[in-house]
Amino acid sequence: MDVDALQRLLDESPVHRGLGLLAVATDGGVLLDAGPGPEHSVGGGAHLHGGVIATILDTAATFALIDATGSDWSTVDLRVDYLRPAPVAALRATGHAVHAGRQLGRARAELCEPETGRRLAEAVGTFVRND
Amino acid sequence: MDVDALQRLLDESPVHRGLGLLAVATDGGVLLDAGPGPEHSVGGGAHLHGGVIATILDTAATFALIDATGSDWSTVDLRVDYLRPAPVAALRATGHAVHAGRQLGRARAELCEPETGRRLAEAVGTFVRND
Amino acid sequence: MDVDALQRLLDESPVHRGLGLLAVATDGGVLLDAGPGPEHSVGGGAHLHGGVIATILDTAATFALIDATGSDWSTVDLRVDYLRPAPVAALRATGHAVHAGRQLGRARAELCEPETGRRLAEAVGTFVRND
Amino acid sequence: MDVDALQRLLDESPVHRGLGLLAVATDGGVLLDAGPGPEHSVGGGAHLHGGVIATILDTAATFALIDATGSDWSTVDLRVDYLRPAPVAALRATGHAVHAGRQLGRARAELCEPETGRRLAEAVGTFVRND
Repeated sequence: MDVDALQRLLDESPVHRGLGLLAVATDGGVLLDAGPGPEHSVGGGAHLHGGVIATILDTAATFALIDATGSDWSTVDLRVDYLRPAPVAALRATGHAVHAGRQLGRARAELCEPETGRRLAEAVGTFVRND
Repeated sequence: MDVDALQRLLDESPVHRGLGLLAVATDGGVLLDAGPGPEHSVGGGAHLHGGVIATILDTAATFALIDATGSDWSTVDLRVDYLRPAPVAALRATGHAVHAGRQLGRARAELCEPETGRRLAEAVGTFVRND
Repeated sequence: MDVDALQRLLDESPVHRGLGLLAVATDGGVLLDAGPGPEHSVGGGAHLHGGVIATILDTAATFALIDATGSDWSTVDLRVDYLRPAPVAALRATGHAVHAGRQLGRARAELCEPETGRRLAEAVGTFVRND
Repeated sequence: MDVDALQRLLDESPVHRGLGLLAVATDGGVLLDAGPGPEHSVGGGAHLHGGVIATILDTAATFALIDATGSDWSTVDLRVDYLRPAPVAALRATGHAVHAGRQLGRARAELCEPETGRRLAEAVGTFVRND
Protein backbone atom coordinates (compact mmCIF):
# COMPACT_ATOMS: atom_id res chain seq x y z
CA MET A 1 0.00 0.00 0.00
CA ASP A 2 1.41 3.42 -0.84
CA VAL A 3 1.41 6.32 1.58
CA ASP A 4 -1.52 8.06 -0.13
CA ALA A 5 -3.74 4.98 0.07
CA LEU A 6 -2.86 4.56 3.75
CA GLN A 7 -3.68 8.23 4.37
CA ARG A 8 -7.07 7.86 2.71
CA LEU A 9 -7.91 4.86 4.92
CA LEU A 10 -6.74 6.73 8.02
CA ASP A 11 -8.85 9.76 7.12
CA GLU A 12 -12.04 7.70 7.11
CA SER A 13 -12.04 7.79 10.93
CA PRO A 14 -12.67 11.07 12.75
CA VAL A 15 -10.53 9.80 15.65
CA HIS A 16 -7.53 9.70 13.30
CA ARG A 17 -8.25 13.14 11.86
CA GLY A 18 -8.64 14.54 15.39
CA LEU A 19 -5.17 13.24 16.25
CA GLY A 20 -3.69 14.63 13.05
CA LEU A 21 -2.46 11.19 12.00
CA LEU A 22 -0.26 11.52 8.94
CA ALA A 23 1.03 8.54 6.96
CA VAL A 24 4.78 9.03 6.48
CA ALA A 25 6.05 5.72 5.14
CA THR A 26 5.00 2.12 4.50
CA ASP A 27 8.33 0.33 4.05
CA GLY A 28 8.28 -2.95 5.99
CA GLY A 29 5.87 -1.45 8.50
CA VAL A 30 3.99 1.81 8.82
CA LEU A 31 5.25 5.15 10.08
CA LEU A 32 2.68 7.65 11.31
CA ASP A 33 3.11 11.19 12.62
CA ALA A 34 0.64 12.34 15.27
CA GLY A 35 -0.18 15.90 16.27
CA PRO A 36 -2.32 15.64 19.40
CA GLY A 37 -3.72 18.78 21.02
CA PRO A 38 -4.80 19.90 24.49
CA GLU A 39 -8.09 18.02 24.04
CA HIS A 40 -6.04 14.78 24.24
CA SER A 41 -4.38 15.59 27.56
CA VAL A 42 -4.93 14.18 31.02
CA GLY A 43 -5.29 16.13 34.28
CA GLY A 44 -3.11 19.23 34.28
CA GLY A 45 -2.57 19.13 30.56
CA ALA A 46 1.16 18.50 29.99
CA HIS A 47 0.78 14.82 29.11
CA LEU A 48 -1.35 12.67 26.85
CA HIS A 49 -4.15 10.54 28.27
CA GLY A 50 -3.14 6.89 28.30
CA GLY A 51 -6.16 6.08 26.19
CA VAL A 52 -4.93 8.44 23.48
CA ILE A 53 -1.60 6.63 23.48
CA ALA A 54 -3.48 3.34 23.17
CA THR A 55 -5.45 4.82 20.27
CA ILE A 56 -2.34 5.78 18.33
CA LEU A 57 -0.66 2.42 18.98
CA ASP A 58 -3.78 0.42 18.11
CA THR A 59 -4.02 2.35 14.86
CA ALA A 60 -0.35 1.85 13.95
CA ALA A 61 -0.51 -1.88 14.70
CA THR A 62 -3.77 -2.43 12.81
CA PHE A 63 -2.57 -0.52 9.75
CA ALA A 64 0.71 -2.45 9.77
CA LEU A 65 -1.31 -5.63 9.22
CA ILE A 66 -3.52 -3.93 6.62
CA ASP A 67 -0.42 -2.69 4.82
CA ALA A 68 1.31 -6.08 5.00
CA THR A 69 -1.62 -8.14 3.74
CA GLY A 70 -4.08 -5.95 1.83
CA SER A 71 -6.84 -7.33 4.10
CA ASP A 72 -8.82 -5.46 6.71
CA TRP A 73 -8.18 -6.45 10.35
CA SER A 74 -9.92 -5.83 13.69
CA THR A 75 -8.28 -5.77 17.09
CA VAL A 76 -9.03 -8.82 19.23
CA ASP A 77 -6.89 -7.77 22.18
CA LEU A 78 -4.15 -5.25 22.78
CA ARG A 79 -1.49 -4.84 25.46
CA VAL A 80 -0.05 -1.37 25.94
CA ASP A 81 3.14 -0.71 27.91
CA TYR A 82 3.53 2.86 29.12
CA LEU A 83 7.25 3.53 29.47
CA ARG A 84 7.38 7.32 30.02
CA PRO A 85 4.82 10.15 30.17
CA ALA A 86 4.12 11.32 26.60
CA PRO A 87 4.06 15.07 26.00
CA VAL A 88 1.21 16.80 24.18
CA ALA A 89 3.43 17.37 21.15
CA ALA A 90 4.35 16.02 17.74
CA LEU A 91 5.00 12.28 18.09
CA ARG A 92 5.90 9.42 15.80
CA ALA A 93 4.42 5.92 15.80
CA THR A 94 5.65 2.83 14.00
CA GLY A 95 3.72 -0.38 13.44
CA HIS A 96 4.98 -3.80 12.34
CA ALA A 97 3.20 -7.01 11.46
CA VAL A 98 4.65 -9.86 13.53
CA HIS A 99 2.64 -12.71 12.05
CA ALA A 100 -0.23 -12.76 9.59
CA GLY A 101 -2.06 -16.08 9.42
CA ARG A 102 -5.20 -16.94 7.49
CA GLN A 103 -7.39 -15.97 10.42
CA LEU A 104 -5.29 -14.34 13.11
CA GLY A 105 -2.52 -11.80 13.05
CA ARG A 106 -0.17 -10.18 15.55
CA ALA A 107 1.34 -6.76 15.31
CA ARG A 108 3.44 -4.40 17.39
CA ALA A 109 3.63 -0.65 17.60
CA GLU A 110 5.85 1.93 19.26
CA LEU A 111 5.37 5.58 20.12
CA CYS A 112 8.50 7.74 20.09
CA GLU A 113 9.64 11.34 20.41
CA PRO A 114 10.57 12.23 16.83
CA GLU A 115 13.78 14.16 17.61
CA THR A 116 15.36 11.85 20.16
CA GLY A 117 13.81 8.55 19.08
CA ARG A 118 13.08 7.92 22.77
CA ARG A 119 10.41 5.26 23.14
CA LEU A 120 7.44 6.47 25.19
CA ALA A 121 5.12 3.47 24.89
CA GLU A 122 4.69 0.29 22.96
CA ALA A 123 1.96 -2.23 22.25
CA VAL A 124 1.39 -5.72 20.96
CA GLY A 125 -1.94 -7.19 19.95
CA THR A 126 -3.86 -10.01 18.36
CA PHE A 127 -6.02 -9.17 15.35
CA VAL A 128 -8.58 -11.03 13.24
CA ARG A 129 -9.11 -10.72 9.47
CA ASN A 130 -12.44 -9.17 8.51
CA ASP A 131 -12.52 -10.78 5.07
CA MET B 1 -14.66 8.86 47.58
CA ASP B 2 -18.17 10.12 46.90
CA VAL B 3 -19.61 10.45 43.42
CA ASP B 4 -19.17 14.24 43.34
CA ALA B 5 -15.48 14.04 44.21
CA LEU B 6 -14.97 11.39 41.53
CA GLN B 7 -16.80 13.58 38.99
CA ARG B 8 -14.57 16.56 39.82
CA LEU B 9 -11.44 14.44 39.27
CA LEU B 10 -12.82 13.09 36.01
CA ASP B 11 -13.67 16.57 34.78
CA GLU B 12 -10.02 17.69 35.09
CA SER B 13 -9.26 15.85 31.85
CA PRO B 14 -10.66 17.11 28.54
CA VAL B 15 -10.62 13.53 27.22
CA HIS B 16 -13.16 12.57 29.90
CA ARG B 17 -15.34 15.60 29.24
CA GLY B 18 -15.24 14.85 25.50
CA LEU B 19 -16.56 11.35 26.20
CA GLY B 20 -19.26 12.67 28.53
CA LEU B 21 -17.97 10.51 31.38
CA LEU B 22 -20.40 10.70 34.29
CA ALA B 23 -19.69 9.21 37.73
CA VAL B 24 -22.72 7.14 38.72
CA ALA B 25 -21.62 5.18 41.78
CA THR B 26 -18.55 4.32 43.86
CA ASP B 27 -19.73 1.30 45.86
CA GLY B 28 -17.02 -1.36 45.87
CA GLY B 29 -15.83 -0.16 42.48
CA VAL B 30 -16.69 2.72 40.18
CA LEU B 31 -19.55 2.97 37.74
CA LEU B 32 -19.25 5.45 34.88
CA ASP B 33 -21.66 6.37 32.13
CA ALA B 34 -20.17 7.36 28.79
CA GLY B 35 -21.82 9.31 25.99
CA PRO B 36 -19.47 9.09 23.01
CA GLY B 37 -20.30 10.91 19.77
CA PRO B 38 -19.56 10.51 16.06
CA GLU B 39 -16.09 12.01 16.63
CA HIS B 40 -15.23 8.79 18.53
CA SER B 41 -16.19 6.43 15.71
CA VAL B 42 -14.05 4.33 13.41
CA GLY B 43 -14.41 3.97 9.63
CA GLY B 44 -18.04 4.14 8.55
CA GLY B 45 -19.17 5.56 11.85
CA ALA B 46 -21.46 2.96 13.46
CA HIS B 47 -18.87 1.69 15.95
CA LEU B 48 -16.42 3.16 18.45
CA HIS B 49 -12.71 3.24 17.69
CA GLY B 50 -10.90 0.59 19.71
CA GLY B 51 -8.72 3.32 21.21
CA VAL B 52 -11.80 5.06 22.58
CA ILE B 53 -12.86 1.82 24.23
CA ALA B 54 -9.36 1.52 25.70
CA THR B 55 -9.67 5.10 26.96
CA ILE B 56 -12.93 4.43 28.80
CA LEU B 57 -11.61 1.17 30.30
CA ASP B 58 -8.27 2.69 31.33
CA THR B 59 -10.17 5.50 33.04
CA ALA B 60 -12.56 3.16 34.87
CA ALA B 61 -9.72 0.93 36.06
CA THR B 62 -7.52 3.83 37.19
CA PHE B 63 -10.34 5.52 39.07
CA ALA B 64 -11.28 2.23 40.75
CA LEU B 65 -7.82 2.22 42.33
CA ILE B 66 -8.03 5.93 43.17
CA ASP B 67 -11.42 5.35 44.77
CA ALA B 68 -10.25 2.28 46.68
CA THR B 69 -7.09 3.84 48.12
CA GLY B 70 -7.32 7.63 48.09
CA SER B 71 -3.97 7.66 46.24
CA ASP B 72 -3.29 8.72 42.67
CA TRP B 73 -2.24 5.96 40.27
CA SER B 74 -0.73 5.82 36.77
CA THR B 75 -1.14 3.03 34.24
CA VAL B 76 1.97 0.87 33.80
CA ASP B 77 0.42 -1.51 31.28
CA LEU B 78 -3.07 -2.38 30.14
CA ARG B 79 -4.59 -5.32 28.29
CA VAL B 80 -7.85 -4.71 26.50
CA ASP B 81 -10.07 -7.53 25.22
CA TYR B 82 -12.53 -6.52 22.51
CA LEU B 83 -15.48 -8.89 22.72
CA ARG B 84 -18.04 -7.26 20.40
CA PRO B 85 -18.20 -4.06 18.30
CA ALA B 86 -19.32 -1.20 20.56
CA PRO B 87 -22.00 1.13 19.17
CA VAL B 88 -21.63 4.91 19.20
CA ALA B 89 -24.24 5.19 21.95
CA ALA B 90 -24.70 5.53 25.69
CA LEU B 91 -22.51 2.93 27.41
CA ARG B 92 -21.68 1.94 30.96
CA ALA B 93 -18.25 1.12 32.37
CA THR B 94 -17.37 -0.46 35.69
CA GLY B 95 -13.96 -0.55 37.33
CA HIS B 96 -12.72 -2.70 40.23
CA ALA B 97 -9.47 -2.74 42.15
CA VAL B 98 -8.04 -6.26 42.14
CA HIS B 99 -5.03 -5.65 44.37
CA ALA B 100 -3.56 -2.47 45.82
CA GLY B 101 -0.05 -2.87 47.20
CA ARG B 102 2.29 -0.19 48.52
CA GLN B 103 3.78 0.36 45.10
CA LEU B 104 1.82 -1.57 42.52
CA GLY B 105 -1.86 -2.12 41.94
CA ARG B 106 -4.05 -4.11 39.56
CA ALA B 107 -7.50 -3.22 38.39
CA ARG B 108 -10.10 -4.45 35.94
CA ALA B 109 -12.78 -2.70 33.95
CA GLU B 110 -15.71 -3.70 31.76
CA LEU B 111 -17.70 -1.87 29.13
CA CYS B 112 -21.35 -2.86 28.76
CA GLU B 113 -24.53 -1.92 26.97
CA PRO B 114 -26.59 -0.30 29.72
CA GLU B 115 -29.96 -1.87 28.84
CA THR B 116 -28.89 -5.45 28.20
CA GLY B 117 -25.80 -5.61 30.39
CA ARG B 118 -24.05 -7.27 27.44
CA ARG B 119 -20.28 -7.01 27.86
CA LEU B 120 -18.58 -5.33 24.88
CA ALA B 121 -15.00 -5.17 26.11
CA GLU B 122 -12.93 -5.61 29.23
CA ALA B 123 -9.48 -4.70 30.46
CA VAL B 124 -6.96 -5.52 33.14
CA GLY B 125 -3.90 -3.50 33.98
CA THR B 126 -0.97 -2.89 36.28
CA PHE B 127 -0.74 0.54 37.91
CA VAL B 128 1.83 2.39 40.03
CA ARG B 129 1.14 4.78 42.90
CA ASN B 130 2.17 8.35 42.19
CA ASP B 131 2.55 9.29 45.86
CA MET C 1 -18.49 -32.24 30.87
CA ASP C 2 -18.41 -34.20 34.10
CA VAL C 3 -15.45 -34.22 36.46
CA ASP C 4 -14.28 -37.67 35.35
CA ALA C 5 -14.20 -36.68 31.67
CA LEU C 6 -12.27 -33.52 32.55
CA GLN C 7 -9.81 -35.57 34.59
CA ARG C 8 -9.22 -37.96 31.69
CA LEU C 9 -8.47 -35.06 29.36
CA LEU C 10 -6.13 -33.48 31.92
CA ASP C 11 -4.30 -36.78 32.39
CA GLU C 12 -3.38 -36.94 28.70
CA SER C 13 -0.63 -34.36 29.33
CA PRO C 14 2.41 -35.27 31.41
CA VAL C 15 2.71 -31.61 32.47
CA HIS C 16 -0.68 -31.90 34.20
CA ARG C 17 0.18 -35.21 35.85
CA GLY C 18 3.49 -33.74 37.05
CA LEU C 19 1.58 -30.91 38.73
CA GLY C 20 -0.92 -33.31 40.28
CA LEU C 21 -3.83 -31.49 38.61
CA LEU C 22 -7.09 -32.86 39.95
CA ALA C 23 -10.50 -31.95 38.51
CA VAL C 24 -12.73 -30.97 41.44
CA ALA C 25 -15.81 -29.44 39.84
CA THR C 26 -17.20 -28.24 36.51
CA ASP C 27 -20.15 -26.09 37.57
CA GLY C 28 -20.17 -22.86 35.56
CA GLY C 29 -16.39 -23.00 35.26
CA VAL C 30 -13.72 -25.50 36.22
CA LEU C 31 -12.11 -26.02 39.61
CA LEU C 32 -8.72 -27.72 39.71
CA ASP C 33 -6.53 -28.68 42.62
CA ALA C 34 -2.77 -28.58 42.08
CA GLY C 35 -0.07 -30.30 44.09
CA PRO C 36 3.24 -28.91 42.87
CA GLY C 37 6.52 -30.21 44.29
CA PRO C 38 10.05 -28.91 44.80
CA GLU C 39 10.78 -29.54 41.11
CA HIS C 40 8.39 -26.65 40.34
CA SER C 41 10.15 -24.12 42.56
CA VAL C 42 12.29 -21.13 41.70
CA GLY C 43 15.63 -20.15 43.24
CA GLY C 44 15.76 -21.03 46.94
CA GLY C 45 12.77 -23.31 46.72
CA ALA C 46 10.00 -21.76 48.84
CA HIS C 47 8.02 -20.38 45.91
CA LEU C 48 6.70 -21.61 42.59
CA HIS C 49 8.37 -20.58 39.34
CA GLY C 50 6.25 -18.00 37.53
CA GLY C 51 6.12 -20.29 34.52
CA VAL C 52 4.53 -23.01 36.62
CA ILE C 53 1.86 -20.53 37.73
CA ALA C 54 1.30 -19.63 34.08
CA THR C 55 0.99 -23.34 33.29
CA ILE C 56 -1.74 -23.92 35.88
CA LEU C 57 -3.64 -20.79 34.83
CA ASP C 58 -3.36 -21.55 31.11
CA THR C 59 -4.70 -25.03 31.80
CA ALA C 60 -7.63 -23.81 33.92
CA ALA C 61 -8.60 -21.17 31.34
CA THR C 62 -8.34 -23.56 28.38
CA PHE C 63 -10.36 -26.27 30.11
CA ALA C 64 -13.01 -23.74 31.10
CA LEU C 65 -13.62 -23.13 27.39
CA ILE C 66 -13.49 -26.85 26.61
CA ASP C 67 -15.99 -27.51 29.38
CA ALA C 68 -18.27 -24.67 28.30
CA THR C 69 -18.40 -25.59 24.62
CA GLY C 70 -17.42 -29.24 24.11
CA SER C 71 -14.86 -28.04 21.54
CA ASP C 72 -11.09 -28.17 21.81
CA TRP C 73 -9.30 -24.80 22.12
CA SER C 74 -5.70 -23.59 21.80
CA THR C 75 -4.19 -20.57 23.50
CA VAL C 76 -3.56 -17.64 21.16
CA ASP C 77 -2.23 -15.30 23.84
CA LEU C 78 -2.26 -15.17 27.62
CA ARG C 79 -1.71 -12.43 30.16
CA VAL C 80 -0.69 -13.50 33.65
CA ASP C 81 -0.81 -11.17 36.66
CA TYR C 82 1.36 -12.24 39.57
CA LEU C 83 -0.20 -10.81 42.73
CA ARG C 84 1.74 -12.56 45.52
CA PRO C 85 4.49 -15.22 45.68
CA ALA C 86 2.86 -18.66 45.48
CA PRO C 87 4.08 -21.28 47.95
CA VAL C 88 5.13 -24.77 46.87
CA ALA C 89 1.98 -26.25 48.40
CA ALA C 90 -1.54 -27.43 47.61
CA LEU C 91 -3.25 -24.73 45.53
CA ARG C 92 -6.61 -24.27 43.86
CA ALA C 93 -7.27 -22.86 40.39
CA THR C 94 -10.55 -21.78 38.86
CA GLY C 95 -11.24 -21.13 35.19
CA HIS C 96 -14.18 -19.35 33.56
CA ALA C 97 -15.18 -18.85 29.95
CA VAL C 98 -15.73 -15.13 29.31
CA HIS C 99 -16.87 -15.35 25.70
CA ALA C 100 -17.02 -18.26 23.27
CA GLY C 101 -17.53 -17.22 19.65
CA ARG C 102 -17.47 -19.40 16.56
CA GLN C 103 -13.77 -18.86 16.10
CA LEU C 104 -12.36 -17.05 19.09
CA GLY C 105 -12.89 -17.38 22.82
CA ARG C 106 -11.74 -15.62 25.96
CA ALA C 107 -11.29 -17.13 29.36
CA ARG C 108 -10.00 -16.18 32.79
CA ALA C 109 -8.35 -18.14 35.55
CA GLU C 110 -7.34 -17.54 39.14
CA LEU C 111 -4.89 -19.27 41.45
CA CYS C 112 -5.74 -19.21 45.16
CA GLU C 113 -4.63 -20.58 48.50
CA PRO C 114 -7.30 -23.17 49.26
CA GLU C 115 -7.71 -22.40 52.97
CA THR C 116 -7.79 -18.62 52.87
CA GLY C 117 -9.10 -18.11 49.33
CA ARG C 118 -6.36 -15.50 48.93
CA ARG C 119 -5.73 -14.84 45.23
CA LEU C 120 -2.08 -15.40 44.26
CA ALA C 121 -2.27 -14.85 40.51
CA GLU C 122 -4.76 -14.51 37.71
CA ALA C 123 -4.80 -14.70 33.94
CA VAL C 124 -6.89 -13.80 30.93
CA GLY C 125 -6.36 -15.06 27.42
CA THR C 126 -7.60 -15.33 23.88
CA PHE C 127 -8.16 -18.82 22.48
CA VAL C 128 -9.00 -20.31 19.09
CA ARG C 129 -11.22 -23.32 18.38
CA ASN C 130 -9.36 -26.30 16.95
CA ASP C 131 -12.44 -27.78 15.27
CA MET D 1 27.23 -10.72 33.53
CA ASP D 2 29.26 -13.44 31.84
CA VAL D 3 27.76 -16.66 30.55
CA ASP D 4 29.08 -18.73 33.47
CA ALA D 5 27.52 -16.43 36.07
CA LEU D 6 24.21 -16.53 34.20
CA GLN D 7 24.38 -20.33 34.06
CA ARG D 8 24.98 -20.54 37.81
CA LEU D 9 21.92 -18.36 38.49
CA LEU D 10 19.82 -20.42 36.09
CA ASP D 11 20.92 -23.65 37.74
CA GLU D 12 19.56 -22.53 41.12
CA SER D 13 16.04 -23.38 39.92
CA PRO D 14 15.04 -27.00 39.31
CA VAL D 15 12.55 -25.81 36.68
CA HIS D 16 15.47 -24.48 34.61
CA ARG D 17 17.52 -27.65 35.06
CA GLY D 18 14.50 -29.75 34.08
CA LEU D 19 14.25 -27.78 30.83
CA GLY D 20 17.98 -28.10 30.16
CA LEU D 21 18.35 -24.31 29.99
CA LEU D 22 21.84 -23.45 28.82
CA ALA D 23 23.24 -19.91 28.81
CA VAL D 24 24.77 -19.30 25.37
CA ALA D 25 25.46 -15.57 25.24
CA THR D 26 24.86 -12.33 27.11
CA ASP D 27 25.64 -9.68 24.49
CA GLY D 28 22.97 -6.96 24.59
CA GLY D 29 20.41 -9.52 25.75
CA VAL D 30 20.50 -13.15 26.79
CA LEU D 31 20.50 -16.20 24.58
CA LEU D 32 19.36 -19.49 26.10
CA ASP D 33 19.18 -22.96 24.62
CA ALA D 34 16.39 -25.22 25.87
CA GLY D 35 16.18 -28.99 25.65
CA PRO D 36 12.66 -29.92 26.73
CA GLY D 37 11.61 -33.58 26.92
CA PRO D 38 8.40 -35.59 26.64
CA GLU D 39 7.49 -34.59 30.21
CA HIS D 40 6.97 -31.03 28.86
CA SER D 41 4.52 -32.02 26.15
CA VAL D 42 0.79 -31.49 25.86
CA GLY D 43 -1.83 -34.05 24.83
CA GLY D 44 -0.47 -36.45 22.20
CA GLY D 45 3.11 -35.46 22.86
CA ALA D 46 4.43 -33.80 19.68
CA HIS D 47 4.18 -30.23 21.01
CA LEU D 48 5.18 -28.32 24.10
CA HIS D 49 2.59 -27.31 26.69
CA GLY D 50 1.86 -23.59 26.44
CA GLY D 51 2.84 -23.21 30.07
CA VAL D 52 6.30 -24.60 29.30
CA ILE D 53 6.68 -22.01 26.55
CA ALA D 54 5.62 -19.33 29.04
CA THR D 55 8.22 -20.68 31.47
CA ILE D 56 11.08 -20.40 28.98
CA LEU D 57 10.00 -16.91 27.87
CA ASP D 58 9.50 -15.65 31.43
CA THR D 59 12.97 -16.91 32.29
CA ALA D 60 14.62 -15.31 29.25
CA ALA D 61 12.91 -11.97 29.89
CA THR D 62 13.70 -11.94 33.61
CA PHE D 63 17.35 -12.83 33.05
CA ALA D 64 17.66 -10.16 30.37
CA LEU D 65 16.81 -7.57 33.04
CA ILE D 66 19.13 -9.24 35.56
CA ASP D 67 21.91 -9.25 32.99
CA ALA D 68 21.30 -5.64 31.98
CA THR D 69 21.19 -4.22 35.51
CA GLY D 70 22.92 -6.54 37.96
CA SER D 71 19.74 -6.40 40.09
CA ASP D 72 17.29 -9.19 40.78
CA TRP D 73 13.81 -8.80 39.25
CA SER D 74 10.44 -10.49 39.72
CA THR D 75 7.68 -10.80 37.13
CA VAL D 76 4.70 -8.53 37.78
CA ASP D 77 2.77 -9.52 34.68
CA LEU D 78 3.56 -11.31 31.44
CA ARG D 79 1.85 -11.51 28.06
CA VAL D 80 2.67 -14.50 25.91
CA ASP D 81 1.82 -14.69 22.20
CA TYR D 82 1.72 -18.20 20.76
CA LEU D 83 2.53 -17.94 17.06
CA ARG D 84 3.03 -21.57 16.04
CA PRO D 85 2.99 -24.96 17.84
CA ALA D 86 6.44 -25.56 19.35
CA PRO D 87 7.96 -29.01 18.86
CA VAL D 88 9.40 -31.04 21.74
CA ALA D 89 12.93 -30.40 20.49
CA ALA D 90 15.99 -28.22 20.96
CA LEU D 91 14.84 -24.57 20.96
CA ARG D 92 16.45 -21.19 21.37
CA ALA D 93 15.17 -18.27 23.44
CA THR D 94 16.35 -14.68 23.45
CA GLY D 95 15.56 -12.04 26.04
CA HIS D 96 15.98 -8.27 25.85
CA ALA D 97 15.51 -5.52 28.43
CA VAL D 98 13.19 -2.86 26.98
CA HIS D 99 13.32 -0.40 29.86
CA ALA D 100 14.88 -0.62 33.32
CA GLY D 101 13.70 2.07 35.72
CA ARG D 102 14.46 2.43 39.41
CA GLN D 103 11.45 0.39 40.37
CA LEU D 104 9.90 -1.12 37.26
CA GLY D 105 11.33 -2.78 34.18
CA ARG D 106 10.02 -4.20 30.92
CA ALA D 107 11.53 -6.99 28.93
CA ARG D 108 10.73 -9.08 25.88
CA ALA D 109 11.58 -12.62 24.90
CA GLU D 110 11.26 -14.79 21.82
CA LEU D 111 11.30 -18.54 21.29
CA CYS D 112 12.69 -19.76 17.97
CA GLU D 113 13.60 -22.92 16.10
CA PRO D 114 17.41 -22.83 16.16
CA GLU D 115 18.02 -23.96 12.56
CA THR D 116 15.43 -21.87 10.75
CA GLY D 117 15.17 -18.94 13.17
CA ARG D 118 11.39 -19.27 12.82
CA ARG D 119 9.67 -17.54 15.72
CA LEU D 120 7.33 -19.84 17.65
CA ALA D 121 6.24 -17.55 20.47
CA GLU D 122 7.09 -14.25 22.10
CA ALA D 123 6.39 -12.47 25.34
CA VAL D 124 6.54 -9.05 26.95
CA GLY D 125 6.26 -8.34 30.64
CA THR D 126 6.50 -5.86 33.46
CA PHE D 127 8.98 -6.64 36.23
CA VAL D 128 9.82 -5.14 39.64
CA ARG D 129 13.27 -4.83 41.22
CA ASN D 130 13.70 -6.97 44.32
CA ASP D 131 16.48 -4.80 45.75
